[in-house]
Amino acid sequence: MKTIRASIIGFGAVGQGVAKVILSKSDYLKNIGIDLKVVAVADSRTAAVDSNGLDLSAVLSRKTEQGTVGTDNISGTEIIKTIDHELVIETTPTNIDTGGVGLDNMVAAFEKGIDVVTSNKGPLALKYCELGEIAKSSGSQFKFEATVGGAMPIINLASETLAGNKILSMEGILNGTCNYILCRMMEEHAPYEQMVAEAQELGIAETDPTYDVEGIDTACKLVILANAIFGMNATYKDVTVTGITKITPEALLMAHNDGYDIKLIGEVSGSKINVAPKLVPKDNPLAVGGTLNVASLQTDISGPVTITGRGAGSIETASAILSDIISIYRE
Amino acid sequence: MKTIRASIIGFGAVGQGVAKVILSKSDYLKNIGIDLKVVAVADSRTAAVDSNGLDLSAVLSRKTEQGTVGTDNISGTEIIKTIDHELVIETTPTNIDTGGVGLDNMVAAFEKGIDVVTSNKGPLALKYCELGEIAKSSGSQFKFEATVGGAMPIINLASETLAGNKILSMEGILNGTCNYILCRMMEEHAPYEQMVAEAQELGIAETDPTYDVEGIDTACKLVILANAIFGMNATYKDVTVTGITKITPEALLMAHNDGYDIKLIGEVSGSKINVAPKLVPKDNPLAVGGTLNVASLQTDISGPVTITGRGAGSIETASAILSDIISIYRE
Repeated sequence: MKTIRASIIGFGAVGQGVAKVILSKSDYLKNIGIDLKVVAVADSRTAAVDSNGLDLSAVLSRKTEQGTVGTDNISGTEIIKTIDHELVIETTPTNIDTGGVGLDNMVAAFEKGIDVVTSNKGPLALKYCELGEIAKSSGSQFKFEATVGGAMPIINLASETLAGNKILSMEGILNGTCNYILCRMMEEHAPYEQMVAEAQELGIAETDPTYDVEGIDTACKLVILANAIFGMNATYKDVTVTGITKITPEALLMAHNDGYDIKLIGEVSGSKINVAPKLVPKDNPLAVGGTLNVASLQTDISGPVTITGRGAGSIETASAILSDIISIYRE
Repeated sequence: MKTIRASIIGFGAVGQGVAKVILSKSDYLKNIGIDLKVVAVADSRTAAVDSNGLDLSAVLSRKTEQGTVGTDNISGTEIIKTIDHELVIETTPTNIDTGGVGLDNMVAAFEKGIDVVTSNKGPLALKYCELGEIAKSSGSQFKFEATVGGAMPIINLASETLAGNKILSMEGILNGTCNYILCRMMEEHAPYEQMVAEAQELGIAETDPTYDVEGIDTACKLVILANAIFGMNATYKDVTVTGITKITPEALLMAHNDGYDIKLIGEVSGSKINVAPKLVPKDNPLAVGGTLNVASLQTDISGPVTITGRGAGSIETASAILSDIISIYRE
C-alpha cells in the first residue's frame, strides 16, 4: 500500500466532485494499493490543512453551509510550496488569457517535484510545452485527461490504449453546451437566443455563454490535443475559431432535409487546428445528440476509432481526474 | 533501451500481420525504449529460429512463396519451452472446444515466467481464471486486447483508461460478420442465405460461417469481457446464445419502419451473459453499420462511454497486440 498525500487546489464544482469521488472510492483505491490522503484543500479565499488527512465529508459540508473550506489562512500556491505532499489536484477555474493562478500552481508543484493532475485547460492551452518540460526535468507526473471531454477519455485512449497506432487526425464535438443548443434549435425550430436561454435555465450554459458558443472552449481543448496527441507545440493563437452564434433554425432545417446535422466540429489534421460549424451526415458516428461529446481518431493501422461520452459534469470530470491518479500510482 | 526477445507462435493472417506491424514500427518502438527482437516464428508445421533476431521480411516472403516459415524442425510449444525469450505472441487459431495448442502454449510460457500477448480467444473462453492464476503466480504479464473487438480497445479502455469507474454493464456488437450480413439484408431486402454468400465472396464470412452467425464468436468474447472487466469467473457454458440465422428481411423491414435496426447484441449485465438479436433504435450509438464493432459501457460515475472501431482484419488485430506489448514494456 502506497500512501499518497494530496492537495485539492480549487474547490468549486469540480474540486468538490473530486472530494466526493475520493470519499466514495476510498475502499476501491485501497484495494488497488493506493491510500489517498487529502492533506489540504483550498478555495479562492480559505483553506483547510491537516497533515494526518482531512475529513473530506466535513470539508464538503462546511463549503455547502458556510461557503468556506476551513479557517486556515494560506493560499493554494503557498500550500503547494510549504506543505509536504506528493500530488496536487489542480481544479481552479480556467483562465485562457494568462493561465491564472492555475499556471502558478502547476509551476510551483513541478519545482518541488510534486505530481499534478488537473482539469484546468488555461495553463495547458497557453504553456503546454513549457509545463511539460518543467514536469519532465523535475521528474513530476503530469496528467490532464479531465481538461478535454469530461468523462470521455480521449487523451489516454490515444496515447496509451492505442499506443501501437500513430494518430493521423482527430475530429469531434468537444463542447456539450453548443451541441445541446444546436440540437434543441433543430428540434424546436427555434432561434439561437431562445435555446441559449433554455440552456442557461437548465445550467447547461453559463450566464455569459461566450466562452462556449464562440468556440473558445473547443479551441482550448484542441490545443491540448494537438500537443498531447500530435506533438505539435501549438498554442491558442494557432487555432482558427468560428462559433455557433450565426447558425439559424432555417440552416439546420435545410441540412436536416438533406440528411445532415450541423455540429460544432473541432479538428486537428496535418498542421491545421480548426473549430467551426460543419455538416455531419446523420448516420456518421460524430452525429451524437444532447450534451454528449464525441471524438473520432484516424489511425495509421487500425482505421478510425470513435469514442463517445459525457463531456461535462462535476462528477464526470472528477472521474477523469481519478482515472489519472490511478494510472500514476497503481502498482 | 530494453531488448525484448519474442516468439510469434502461429503464423496465419494475424501472426503475419504482427510481423508486418513490428517491421513497420521498429523505429517507433526503439524511440519509446523497446528493442523488439523476434527470435522464433512457428506455424503449424515449420519454424524459424535465430537467437540474434530473425529477418522478418524474409520469413514473411518465404511464408507467402513457399507456405512455410523456415526449415527448423521444432514446434511452437517446444520453442516456448526451450528457447530463451521474454515474450510469446500467441496467434494460433481459436479452438473453443479444448483450447487447442494455444492453451498448451500459454501454460508453457507462464510456467517459464514468460509474458504472453494473444489474439487467441479459445483458451481464455475456457480457462480464463486458471490462466490468470498461473500467470500471476509466475510473475508473467498476460494481455489479450486482441481477443475482443480487433482494433476497438474495449478491455484496456475499461480496466485502465476508465480505472476510476466501476463498470456496471456492457452491451455491444462484437462480430463484424453478423453486422455486415444484417445491414446488407436490410439494404437489399434479401434473404439471409444470399447475404451470407456475398459475405463469403468478399472474405468477410468464413466458408463455414457457423462460428460467427450462430453467435459463438460473440459468446466467447463476452466470456473474456465478463472475466476481464467484471471479474465474473465465467466460462462459455454460462452464456445464453442465439444467432442471426432465423432473421428475415421482413423482420428487418418492420423494425426499420419503426425506427429500429436489428443487431446481434452481446451483453454482460449483473450475472447475465447473453448474445441475441435485438431491436436497436437507429439513433442509438450501438446502431453502427458495416463490419464495425461497438461497445457501450455503463459506468457508476461517468454514465455511458461508447467506443467504435474495426472489429477484425489482420493488421487491425495486430495493432491491438502491439498496443498490449507497448503497455507491458514501455518505460
